[in-house]
Amino acid sequence: MSETTGGTVEDPATAVVGDTGLMLSVAAAAAGRNVNVALETVALRARTFSILELVACVDGINQRRLADTLQLNPSQIVALVDDLVGEGLVERRPDETDRRNRLVCATEKGRIRYAEARALADAALDRTLASLDAAERATLHALLRRVVTNRSD
Amino acid sequence: MSETTGGTVEDPATAVVGDTGLMLSVAAAAAGRNVNVALETVALRARTFSILELVACVDGINQRRLADTLQLNPSQIVALVDDLVGEGLVERRPDETDRRNRLVCATEKGRIRYAEARALADAALDRTLASLDAAERATLHALLRRVVTNRSD
Repeated sequence: MSETTGGTVEDPATAVVGDTGLMLSVAAAAAGRNVNVALETVALRARTFSILELVACVDGINQRRLADTLQLNPSQIVALVDDLVGEGLVERRPDETDRRNRLVCATEKGRIRYAEARALADAALDRTLASLDAAERATLHALLRRVVTNRSD
Repeated sequence: MSETTGGTVEDPATAVVGDTGLMLSVAAAAAGRNVNVALETVALRARTFSILELVACVDGINQRRLADTLQLNPSQIVALVDDLVGEGLVERRPDETDRRNRLVCATEKGRIRYAEARALADAALDRTLASLDAAERATLHALLRRVVTNRSD
């Protein structure tokens, strides 16, 4: 017996692929799922990894900028940073140039974990983008870069 | 007094823009936020809108296929469909070709709401992609389409 098609008159993918916004969302969700699976062995998920990446690459960043950069809600950032603090991968320190400000910084353990996770996440992204060749990936990268860096919000 | 830079030694965006996966996530989050704001007047959010879109475009679809197509967890789909049922925009019906299966279908009210929301979501996407011209948007669309439709998972 063939798999039920759920009574559909057309493939649901046809609704998805007509809408650039929906495809962006589905592609990001697929990438996030692949990264989540890949990062199980290092006890990270796509979102905690993205924070660890920023914190490892930028020498101290406050939670508001993390939220702005990743387009997440400040309350989500606080919960995700709490998780990373609990794992000993990042720590919150007072900003010596502004006492009202606290910075999130990577610990040594966090930098080591980030390097391990980076390789796993890269392999997961390769799987997500398997249908694109190197030139097409570079084009996708360049277009997304313009969308991300030219936001007016 | 200039805005505090949070003690960063470089712009956090430089960490984001080096990573295609992270840019995909940030671009999708930015698009989702713009759509959420745009759809406030029609009491929808990006995710409920995406389900309404599929349900309106496909004449009956089961929750498993909604989850597969949108790359969301089945439990998320159930909660989002419940919200739409509560608003009277979709309904669950038995599948006449397979009694074990239930289909999610748009109501007349749902189809009208979808048309209203579609125009608002399109305008929000235009704002998200404002830095790309029409040819670049078409290229982004084509590349994302390949990523979405050629998934091996």
